[in-house]
Amino acid sequence: MNTTAKSEATYATILAAGYDMAAAEGIGKLSLGELSKRTGISKSGVFSRVGSLEALQSAVLDEYDRRFGEEVFLPALQVPRGLPRLTMQVDLWLKKIGNETARGGCLYTAGAFEFDDVPGPLRDRIEAGVMRWRASLRKTVLQAMEAGHLRPDTEPEQLVFEIYSLAIGVMHDARFLRANAVPRRAQRAFNRLISTYKSFNDLE
Amino acid sequence: MNTTAKSEATYATILAAGYDMAAAEGIGKLSLGELSKRTGISKSGVFSRVGSLEALQSAVLDEYDRRFGEEVFLPALQVPRGLPRLTMQVDLWLKKIGNETARGGCLYTAGAFEFDDVPGPLRDRIEAGVMRWRASLRKTVLQAMEAGHLRPDTEPEQLVFEIYSLAIGVMHDARFLRANAVPRRAQRAFNRLISTYKSFNDLE
Repeated sequence: MNTTAKSEATYATILAAGYDMAAAEGIGKLSLGELSKRTGISKSGVFSRVGSLEALQSAVLDEYDRRFGEEVFLPALQVPRGLPRLTMQVDLWLKKIGNETARGGCLYTAGAFEFDDVPGPLRDRIEAGVMRWRASLRKTVLQAMEAGHLRPDTEPEQLVFEIYSLAIGVMHDARFLRANAVPRRAQRAFNRLISTYKSFNDLE
Repeated sequence: MNTTAKSEATYATILAAGYDMAAAEGIGKLSLGELSKRTGISKSGVFSRVGSLEALQSAVLDEYDRRFGEEVFLPALQVPRGLPRLTMQVDLWLKKIGNETARGGCLYTAGAFEFDDVPGPLRDRIEAGVMRWRASLRKTVLQAMEAGHLRPDTEPEQLVFEIYSLAIGVMHDARFLRANAVPRRAQRAFNRLISTYKSFNDLE
C-alpha cells in the first residue's frame, strides 16, 4: 500500500470501531482514547486521522445514514409510491431496528434519549436526522392519500407520530427487554394501525 | 429541630436534589459529588446520609414509584375495572409523561435506553419496574375482556406493547423534539388504537 491507501485503511478501521462502539453503547459514549485501545492505534494516530471527537461523531452518523439509505430508504423507492412504499419503508425500518439488537438498533433514537437535555451540535445533528426521516415518511403518507390508498381525512403528522412511536417501542422491547416476539408484534401493530387509515376503496 | 429531625431533613434535601437531577438528566448521571455541590452539603455528609450511589439510585426510584402510585396507579383504581380503568391508567400516565417535560418524563423509560447495554443491579431494578407496570396494564386489559369491553380475541401482550410504544413515543416527542401537540396526538392515538380492540357491544 502507498501512504495514502494506508492512511485511508487506518481511518476506515477507526471509523468501523467507532460505529460498533456507538451502536452498542450510544453515540455519547464514543471516546478517542477508548478507540485507541480498541484498535491498537496510538492516541495521536487516532487524533490525527479523525481530527476531533465531534468530527468522529459526525462521521459515525454519516455512516449510519449511508447504511440506512442502503437498507431502508433506497429499497423503498423501488416499490410504487403510496401505501406500498409506506409499508415497505416501515417494514424495512422495523426490521433494521428489531434485528440489529446486538449492534444497537437506531443511533438516532438512542441518541434522542441520551441527548434530549444536552444542547449542542450533536443534539442538533440528531434532531435534524430525525426530522429528515419523519419528513420522508410524511411525504409518502401524502402520496398515499393522493393515490386514494389512505382516507382523505388522514392527518399525516398524526400517522407519522404513531408509526414513529411504534418504532421506538420496538427498539425498547428488543434492546432493553430482549423480548422475543418483537418483529411479529411490530408487524401486527402496524397492520392494525394502518387498517384504521385505509380508505374504503382500498379495503376491498 | 432535634438531631434526628435535622438528619431526616438533610436526607430529604439530598433525595429531592437527586430526584430532580435524575429526572432532568437521567438516573445514570447521579453522582454524590455533584449532589454535594448542588445542596451545599459536604461530600462526607452526603455519603454518610445516603450510604452509596447505588442506595441513592434506589431511593430515587422508590420516590418515583411513590409519585407514580399517587398520580397514576391509585387514582385509576378509583374508577370501575375494565375499559374505564384502562383508559384512566393510560390517560394519567400519558399526561404525566407529556406534562413533566421539564422534570424528565419517565425515569424508567429514559433509564431503559440508558442502561440497555449496562448489566447490573440498576438495570435489573429498572427492568423489574417496567415489567411490574406492564403486568398491571395486562391485568386491566384482561378484566376489560372479561367485562366484554374488549374483543375476546384481544391479545393482552400485544395491546400492552402497543400502549407502551405510544407512551415512549410521547416521551420522545415531548422531551427531544419539544413538540407542542403531543398530549392531543397521544390522546387521539390511544382512541384510535383502542377503537380496534373494542367489542361491538361496546361500540354502540
